[in-house]
Amino acid sequence: MSAKKPVVIDLKFERREVDAALASAFPGRTVLHASDPDLDLSEARYAVIWKPEPNLFERAPKLEVLFSGGAGVDHILSMPNLPDIPIVRFVDESLTTRMSEWVVLQCLSHLRQAPAYLKQQREHHWRELSQPEAKDLTVGVMGLGVLGQDSVKKLKVMGFDVIGWSRSRKTIEGVETFDSGELDAFLARTDILVGLLPLTPDTRGIFDASLFAKLRQGGALGRPVFINAGRGGSQVDADLAAALGKGILGGASLDVFEQEPLPTDSPYWAMENVIVTPHAASASDVRALFRNAEAQMERHEAGQPLQHVVDRRTGY
Amino acid sequence: MSAKKPVVIDLKFERREVDAALASAFPGRTVLHASDPDLDLSEARYAVIWKPEPNLFERAPKLEVLFSGGAGVDHILSMPNLPDIPIVRFVDESLTTRMSEWVVLQCLSHLRQAPAYLKQQREHHWRELSQPEAKDLTVGVMGLGVLGQDSVKKLKVMGFDVIGWSRSRKTIEGVETFDSGELDAFLARTDILVGLLPLTPDTRGIFDASLFAKLRQGGALGRPVFINAGRGGSQVDADLAAALGKGILGGASLDVFEQEPLPTDSPYWAMENVIVTPHAASASDVRALFRNAEAQMERHEAGQPLQHVVDRRTGY
Repeated sequence: MSAKKPVVIDLKFERREVDAALASAFPGRTVLHASDPDLDLSEARYAVIWKPEPNLFERAPKLEVLFSGGAGVDHILSMPNLPDIPIVRFVDESLTTRMSEWVVLQCLSHLRQAPAYLKQQREHHWRELSQPEAKDLTVGVMGLGVLGQDSVKKLKVMGFDVIGWSRSRKTIEGVETFDSGELDAFLARTDILVGLLPLTPDTRGIFDASLFAKLRQGGALGRPVFINAGRGGSQVDADLAAALGKGILGGASLDVFEQEPLPTDSPYWAMENVIVTPHAASASDVRALFRNAEAQMERHEAGQPLQHVVDRRTGY
Repeated sequence: MSAKKPVVIDLKFERREVDAALASAFPGRTVLHASDPDLDLSEARYAVIWKPEPNLFERAPKLEVLFSGGAGVDHILSMPNLPDIPIVRFVDESLTTRMSEWVVLQCLSHLRQAPAYLKQQREHHWRELSQPEAKDLTVGVMGLGVLGQDSVKKLKVMGFDVIGWSRSRKTIEGVETFDSGELDAFLARTDILVGLLPLTPDTRGIFDASLFAKLRQGGALGRPVFINAGRGGSQVDADLAAALGKGILGGASLDVFEQEPLPTDSPYWAMENVIVTPHAASASDVRALFRNAEAQMERHEAGQPLQHVVDRRTGY
């Protein structure tokens, strides 16, 4: 067995969490911290990165594989001087489970009118609201990768009618799916739109005024709801805030925004039927990230193919 | 086929919804409204009731079957002069689905710290909180009837560790269950307690200070959470409010209360980690209630046994 190759870490995560996870990660492997500007990174063969420093590739010219610290890779693909080496996405059961927790929570919150009941609670007001059930609503999930498919499965168990859309058609048992040419038909059926799209040139700004206007009006909730846990760059915040303000949308749950942190003067904070979370739908578990990266490094060093390699043409 | 027997309706529901549902219910059967005090009810053989008038049984002495308007029957069993005839519970897929929607919503809301994030939203404050995942928490469900078992199944799909308790032991695949003699062991394992118990002499006041003190402290959420969608009479509100105030409990979701509507001066309304809903977790769908009752009346008239008959000894 050849010696284990060095890895450089450049993760803009909570430093304490990274250090705690590193204590038991990458056994027998040299770990280099890009955060030390004087450290020699020239022998590093792997990099585990999230929003890395722009000069990383100059400092580490012998990299063989890049590991993304999260499900998304747009933060890597947009880097200048990106070397032509494999980029591995972070696919992890914990990441998937947490995302589905958030998506199901948000769909149920709108189905069960949680914002309206909370308002009544603040007013000490006891009043039962008329209540559709899950099967009366169609949830349309955009993005049918690992995260999207897990959300679809769990939303169906909760009783929702679920349909799915992806660029190229996916086949999911028991779920009607649509492809890029059928977006309008998909939107016309959708009462709750769930965005789980990667950020690519094709998806940048896809959630705009014209898309919101195509969602089904007059469903069991009256007006459509928009839920986004993909990437903020996919949504046009000015259009979204206007659609909420005009009542084209009846509500939203937003974990991502064009500008993060969300500015304190954003109108979303104070909108009654909008639930804001701070890009927390599915935080990467750093321990799991390092475990996954180590397993892939070992595959690579044993001459086996890497898994979950990003296709640079499609951007995911 | 013998003639269809008359039915008397005494449902303290929204009158408009009852009338709308009656328009297409009980075809070929005489429907009598107990709300008309001068109407002769003496020929009625069935009664569909929710919190009926105390003199119903005097006015309708020939009743053969009572149909409860909801899953609970305590409102019937506590009536004076209750005749010794079968009482049929309302068991319905819609009732079950809605209850599970509410239970899963509340468990996810506490897991994902929805009250804390809402507070941050009100303050326009962007901060990610440390986040356990569903499998790090044990949800203990008390009451394993039709509703409890459906909730257990769906909570497991969402990733929670789930255990169950019922008076006599139930066997559920993949779920550890406890019986009446094992309550303390069950509570010591439980991070989120879900109450789905019928109200019986055994369960009246069961959720009291001594029970709350036995729940697991120091789990992944720090302190235990109490969720009740069973019956308000099962909970001692003074004890519950005190346990929340002292931090023995870290939060609660409450759909039922000793006194309903919840008095406007109840401390629950303003507690930050308490979610109040107005006995709306699983509203009976009146159409489904009438459909079910008609089907059972037809079984009865065809000489077949009634289904879902209440055992008066156990109270459910």
